Formats: sequence, C-alpha cells, structure tokens
Amino acid sequence: MPTVTVVGSIAFDAVETHAGKRDRLLGGSATHFSLAASFFADTRVVGPVGDDFGDEEFAVLHGRGVNTDDIERVAGGETFFWAGRYERDVNVRHTLQTDLNVFETFEPKLSEASRAADVLFLANIVPALQIGVREQCPDARFTALDSMNLWIDIARDDLVQAIGMVDCVLLNDGEIKQLTDEPNLVRAARAVLELGPKIVVAKQGEYGSALFTKDLFFGLPAYPTADVVDPTGAGDTFAGGFVGYLAAHGGDAPSDEAMRQAMAYGTALASYNVEAFGTERLQTLTGAEVTERVRELTALTRLEDAPVDLRG
Amino acid sequence: MPTVTVVGSIAFDAVETHAGKRDRLLGGSATHFSLAASFFADTRVVGPVGDDFGDEEFAVLHGRGVNTDDIERVAGGETFFWAGRYERDVNVRHTLQTDLNVFETFEPKLSEASRAADVLFLANIVPALQIGVREQCPDARFTALDSMNLWIDIARDDLVQAIGMVDCVLLNDGEIKQLTDEPNLVRAARAVLELGPKIVVAKQGEYGSALFTKDLFFGLPAYPTADVVDPTGAGDTFAGGFVGYLAAHGGDAPSDEAMRQAMAYGTALASYNVEAFGTERLQTLTGAEVTERVRELTALTRLEDAPVDLRG
Repeated sequence: MPTVTVVGSIAFDAVETHAGKRDRLLGGSATHFSLAASFFADTRVVGPVGDDFGDEEFAVLHGRGVNTDDIERVAGGETFFWAGRYERDVNVRHTLQTDLNVFETFEPKLSEASRAADVLFLANIVPALQIGVREQCPDARFTALDSMNLWIDIARDDLVQAIGMVDCVLLNDGEIKQLTDEPNLVRAARAVLELGPKIVVAKQGEYGSALFTKDLFFGLPAYPTADVVDPTGAGDTFAGGFVGYLAAHGGDAPSDEAMRQAMAYGTALASYNVEAFGTERLQTLTGAEVTERVRELTALTRLEDAPVDLRG
Repeated sequence: MPTVTVVGSIAFDAVETHAGKRDRLLGGSATHFSLAASFFADTRVVGPVGDDFGDEEFAVLHGRGVNTDDIERVAGGETFFWAGRYERDVNVRHTLQTDLNVFETFEPKLSEASRAADVLFLANIVPALQIGVREQCPDARFTALDSMNLWIDIARDDLVQAIGMVDCVLLNDGEIKQLTDEPNLVRAARAVLELGPKIVVAKQGEYGSALFTKDLFFGLPAYPTADVVDPTGAGDTFAGGFVGYLAAHGGDAPSDEAMRQAMAYGTALASYNVEAFGTERLQTLTGAEVTERVRELTALTRLEDAPVDLRG
C-alpha cells in the first residue's frame, strides 16, 4: 500500500452559506486532503491542534484510516479557527475571522514514519515551512504543494524556491496568473513549469481544472452540481484525490493516462465534498460512490473522434 | 446542402489589444457567425450596412461562399461601428465607442430564400426584432439565438418571449445566471430550459463551454491558446460552428453525439478566430485545419473508462 504524508492546517471552521450555518466544523487543508487521499493510500497527517481538538475530531480521521500520530497537540493551545461566509453565489467568499492560534508557532517535525512516505503533499502553509518539510523528506518519490495569494504577495521568493523543490504544483488559476504576472493561463502554467515542477494543475472552481506538463494539456470540467452546500475544502479535497491517485497509480513519473485519471478522481471527490458542510459528506462516502462518479464524469465529457468533411 | 440564415450585426470594429491596434476591421455578430457556419452549410447573412461597406468587405464574405443578397445597403448611411480595448488580460474588455448608425433603424426583411433556410440563427440584436424574424421563418427546422446583458436589463420580457420561440439558446454563462437570477449554472441552465428551448449552451470564454438539455450535460474546455491576439467575435464564431454543424448533422432533433461534436467544432473555430484580428484568420482557414483542431481537442480531453479499486 502506498503511503502519503500531508503537512498543513487542521482547523475548526465556522461557515455560513445559503444552505445554513455551522459554528464548529472540522476543517483545515490537511484534514480535507487526507480524507480524500485515504481512498488510495495510507495517509498520515502532520499539523498542530489545541486542547479543544478531541476524540470526536480524531474519530473522523480514524474513520477513514488516516494516521494521526504526527498531529501535535499543543497543551494550553487552541486549534486554528477560520470563519467565513459565502454569498448566495458560492463563488464569492468573505473571510470573517482567522485565528491562527497553535498554527502561529507551528514548526513541523516529522516522525521517521512520516518522512518515509512515498508521497509528500505540502498543503497551503507559509512557504519557508514547506521548504523545511521538503528537506526532511529527501526520499519521497513524488512531491506536490498548494499555496495561496497571501504568500505570493508577502513571501514570493520562498514560494518560488519551494515550487522548485516539488514535482507538482496545484494552485487556483488566478494564483498561477498572479505568481507569474501572466494573464494567459497557458503561458502562466508554462512559466511555473520553468520553475522546476513537471506538473502544474490549475484549479478553476466551478469551471473545473486544467493540467499542464511540458507535453500534455488536459482540461476537465467540474462535475455539474446543482446544489453546492459548502465549497470549503473543495480544492484540498481535489488535491487529495489527485495526489492520492498518483501515489497509488503514478509511480515515479506518472503517465499521461494516470494524470488524466487523477484529475477525474480529484474532481469526483471535490464534487462530493461540496454536497454537505465541512467533512460531513466525505465521512460517509464509499469507494464505490467515488468510482461511480468518475464513470459518470467520463461519460459526461466523452467526445468521439468522428471527423466530418468540411467545405473549403 | 443544408441552409442557414443568420440575422445580426455587420460592423466595422476598431480594436486595441496587447498585440496591436486596428482602426477598421470587418466585424459584427452576423459576419463572424456566417464565416464559421460556411464550413458546414450554405449560409445567408441578413443585416444592414452603409455606403462605407464596399467590395473589399463583400469579398471576405463571398470568399467563404456566404450569400449576401439580403444585406441591406442603406443609401447615405454608415455601417455599425464599435471600438474597444482589451487589457493585457484579454478577458477584460472596455467598450470605447458604439455607433449604431444604420443598425438603429434596422427592420429585418427576409427574402423568400432566407426565410426558407433549414436553420435560423438570431444573433444578438434587440429581442423584439428577433421575435419578428422568428415569425418570418415558421418552417425553420432548427432555430437558435444569442443575446446580451443589455437586453436582460432593458428588454427582459421580450427576450424571454424570444427564447420561448427557439430550439437552442447560446449565452455567456454570466448572462444565463443574470437572466434567471440563479448563481448556480446548472440550476440557471435548467431555468432557461423551462422557458422553452431544448438546448442551452453556456459560453465560458477561456474556460470553454457547457451544454445542457433535459437529459444531457456536456462540458468542453477551451482550446489552450497561448497567444490570444483579438478575442472579438469568438462567441459568434463558436455559435457559427455549433449551429452550422447541427445544420449539417443534426436533423430536427440533434443526437447527444451531434451536440457534442457541434461543441467541438464551435470551440475549434473560435480558437482559430482569436489567433488574429477581426476575420483575418477565418479568411484563410481551411476545412482540414478545422478538422485537425477538433481531432486535437478530442485527444486533449480524452478520459478513458478505467476504474480502480478504492479503499472504503
């Protein structure tokens, strides 16, 4: 069984959407990522929590077999807290509160077991820490990272260095354009490839996702979901499905076909994630449901090679 | 040979993009549509021009076999003029000038031949005129329309009536959401289907396009173009390819496969259109080039049905 280590945030989220309001949901990039990756690989989470993080939260992770030995419980501390409100158009999000709490002084120390994982995912944390974690795992056969606009604004050099140390970058398409100061996504993605990674994945929200390598372009629409209850964590869930699939089926150098499939599994998992608040849908999700949705996506995007004669 | 009639604007465009500046380009929705549709069908353009519209402009249309008998030349009038500037990010457009000129008093009068076309496309004009044209063509076996945010703002009732009279609606995805006051595209498209049409196509610019019927969803990314010289007319060119394909291969009730192919041909033609200013690229484009790009799109979006065993 392949192994994946993810380093990132573990959080409590307060979320308000058109579908309702929740005060305390299990959240965080590493949480969402690990639940998705757990469908493909033995997954270990590295991140800090406070005293307020209890059996109920651990049970969610353990329920999907996620290893929590490297979750660092900070005595007297509080877990990272994020509060946000989505407009009726869930593509518009307002952050209401961010309390870093124990995350503020987080210094990732990976156990021998976490360092030995086949695949390492650096979820969205300060790039200097991503660099440090990457250096703790020199033998990982596949590495990937996510980031955000904040770090492009205030820690660009570190982020560029971190990007140069991984095989794969997953970012929102707006972030790829911002990072490279290039408004055309094709050129922007090429510019990121020039920083070192072999794979760049642009997450495009309701529009889906696009993958770029030196030789491959692959675009996939989002699954058409009529009722998005809570989009929080969709990108991390996508990353967990994508990276998890490659951990299980990608080897050292994933084939084009493996990357296409990884995009589909990431898309399917993200589409489930948004159907309920927080991690609720992933907690009950089965492998058969994931496979079924990938099959549906495959059918929805099928285009036969059926050329016709044209005039002129 | 199937026949298509398009009613819409014929224009001179002044366009400025990162790639340069042109003062007087042949443009207009009916122009772009007809050049694309001409690859599939005998295409007739209905629209007004002024004295300033000359042999050179007619030659562009005739060069692709477009029938211009129903282009109405208004003595003493000037052709519709639009000036716009695109930012370095070509997704951001600023309209600098719009002179309706002869278009202001346009009352479409279709000849017997234009009324007899198999397929009718109502390009973006005031909805009341679209209704009038639709009524002049009761026997068209397939009808479609485009529109814009302006008409949703100031002529919504007429637009809703026009939509109820056609088989297919093509709009930008933002317009579909605006028209239905529904921020989720899946729900918005369903709401448009409830107005009468059997097919709704959401044009999504750099993200591609999505097609909705009661039973089918099909999403297709845009062709990955690294250098967009001039995006003007991309939507009309897409519509010309989509509707033209269905005119030739759709019959009365297009199959799912025909609609998928139509999306691909529209996408391919639009991707060529943006490679040069105005109609320049379409003027030299060959049918073989279009087919080749559709083949490429088919390969770029291919997703095999290759389920794997998942945990849990």
